[in-house]
Amino acid sequence: MNTLLLNEQQIKGLLTMKEAIDICDRTFADLALGNTLNPAKVNLNLGDSEPTKLPYKASLNAMPAYIGWQDVAGMKWAGGFGKGRIEIGRPFLNALILLIQPNYGDFQAVMDGSWIMAMRTGAQSAVCLRHLWPGKKSGTFGIFGCGLQGRTQTMALASEYHIDKLIVYDPIPAATERFVKDMQDVVQGEIVVAKEPKEVSESDACISVTNANDQFIKGEWFGKGSVYLSLGSYSECDDQAILGADHIIVDHVQQCLHRGNLKRLADQGKLDESSFYCTVGEMAAGLRSVENVSQKKILMVPIGMGCLDVACAGIVYKKAISMGLGETFMFDQK
Amino acid sequence: MNTLLLNEQQIKGLLTMKEAIDICDRTFADLALGNTLNPAKVNLNLGDSEPTKLPYKASLNAMPAYIGWQDVAGMKWAGGFGKGRIEIGRPFLNALILLIQPNYGDFQAVMDGSWIMAMRTGAQSAVCLRHLWPGKKSGTFGIFGCGLQGRTQTMALASEYHIDKLIVYDPIPAATERFVKDMQDVVQGEIVVAKEPKEVSESDACISVTNANDQFIKGEWFGKGSVYLSLGSYSECDDQAILGADHIIVDHVQQCLHRGNLKRLADQGKLDESSFYCTVGEMAAGLRSVENVSQKKILMVPIGMGCLDVACAGIVYKKAISMGLGETFMFDQK
Repeated sequence: MNTLLLNEQQIKGLLTMKEAIDICDRTFADLALGNTLNPAKVNLNLGDSEPTKLPYKASLNAMPAYIGWQDVAGMKWAGGFGKGRIEIGRPFLNALILLIQPNYGDFQAVMDGSWIMAMRTGAQSAVCLRHLWPGKKSGTFGIFGCGLQGRTQTMALASEYHIDKLIVYDPIPAATERFVKDMQDVVQGEIVVAKEPKEVSESDACISVTNANDQFIKGEWFGKGSVYLSLGSYSECDDQAILGADHIIVDHVQQCLHRGNLKRLADQGKLDESSFYCTVGEMAAGLRSVENVSQKKILMVPIGMGCLDVACAGIVYKKAISMGLGETFMFDQK
Repeated sequence: MNTLLLNEQQIKGLLTMKEAIDICDRTFADLALGNTLNPAKVNLNLGDSEPTKLPYKASLNAMPAYIGWQDVAGMKWAGGFGKGRIEIGRPFLNALILLIQPNYGDFQAVMDGSWIMAMRTGAQSAVCLRHLWPGKKSGTFGIFGCGLQGRTQTMALASEYHIDKLIVYDPIPAATERFVKDMQDVVQGEIVVAKEPKEVSESDACISVTNANDQFIKGEWFGKGSVYLSLGSYSECDDQAILGADHIIVDHVQQCLHRGNLKRLADQGKLDESSFYCTVGEMAAGLRSVENVSQKKILMVPIGMGCLDVACAGIVYKKAISMGLGETFMFDQK
């Protein structure tokens, strides 16, 4: 059986942000309806989430999923590498995505996962806001972190909304400079570089995509009508930003209790399954909604699910096959 | 960064059973000493371990690991496909193995995982027996299940021992016929096809490598001096075969409580961490040993760890690179 191989360049041409948002939306809903399956990811810690004897600051996640609406299974194997990789100037994250036919067990594709991971991470925020604010067309937005993830968050917001103003913060000035240069054609309104992280919160919704563990985002910044999206697996915000929210909405209940911003409070017994208002998927499926958003502090925690990567990869695979793109390799050649 | 691609044929030429046993032995010991890391595998159930809405009988495991003695990280993504794949005459199992450099995050290799998985599953039994019976040179052995796994178990036993007699059982007569034909040059003594599964237990050590869930292996068959190795993630033996053992020795404590033959008793509270005498790794590292084996009923449960696959793949990768074998693909081509 031939397995299709796709590189980042090819994938970039096969997935628009609009498509990624729609794929993620459908997959969130499918998960809530029980048709898509997404076990909690397994983490291989190489000195990132906890100290080890190793001289690395890395962390790898294996994230398998079955996508009901596409009838495909797959897995993303993604890592963040905070030392050597960063030092030689490569992106923090790296990933591969594998697709497998669930009945015949054929490996259909092995493809680069970095671009899809970045795109779906932007897309998932757009899905969160789409269902929180039905009908909203424009707004001001804030982003903590001006790396690749900050860029795809911006692309996703610009795909769904007229961005009146985008306020960004990064402790590295060169990073914000490059961000403004790269994103000025994507953002319809102005991009403001915040001097202090607090300024980012002065927006309709703000999003954190950093690998900070120092809880620099403060709950006291958020008032009624605020929306804060806390992404990824780090500890970026303080306890008040979590416990002070009127509604906490998560992507995956079990995963959110064991990783990322909510973990320490769950470990302390201050947060459990009953603390969550609903999941993003339940909103996407129309099973739950939030009333009077402007009167509430909303915290959304989409820390990332393999099903979104696999669903995007499934569509990329179908497009590549129909266009005759990519090389093949027969792994099971005997 | 170029990623090396290797197919099954190439891999078969790069790993002897003797090498696989020595690699697994060293990796078991390294794990017990805390230098190799092996989080519990994550399972994507598609109708195998539990019923789903899906028309499949499949199960996929993501098994990441870091190999201390090789300084390489990796993951096996392996599936068993009990319906469509079997119906079209392909092997039950399929797998890929990915290797990643732990500091720079480069994907070093994507390779077929089926052959390595079968070889290391044989090798792990040889490692178990090597440390249970130091100095033993020959014996009689029994195998339940005459598929690919039964063959590599036989190869591993023949690599370590003069097999005086091998007793095999499979409910499918054609499978045993093919097995005898394929394995008669590997086994030094005679191969006996058992009419009833009980006959297999009349050996110095017997091994189950089936996907049966009907607990057909009975504890009443095992007396003092018996050694039973229960492999894989199914429920092949009855409660007495487990609770009647004088020592239970496992490969991975947490994994063995949540999967395979021991799971149901752990779920019922009849078995916990304290029920295990030691791990295979502790024996390989010289930290524990079993005295008076001939006076005891021994149950060993190596249900399989990704670190063994990744360790074998790491050596295969080094050999392939030094020989200039395999194709390459640049997944991160931008």
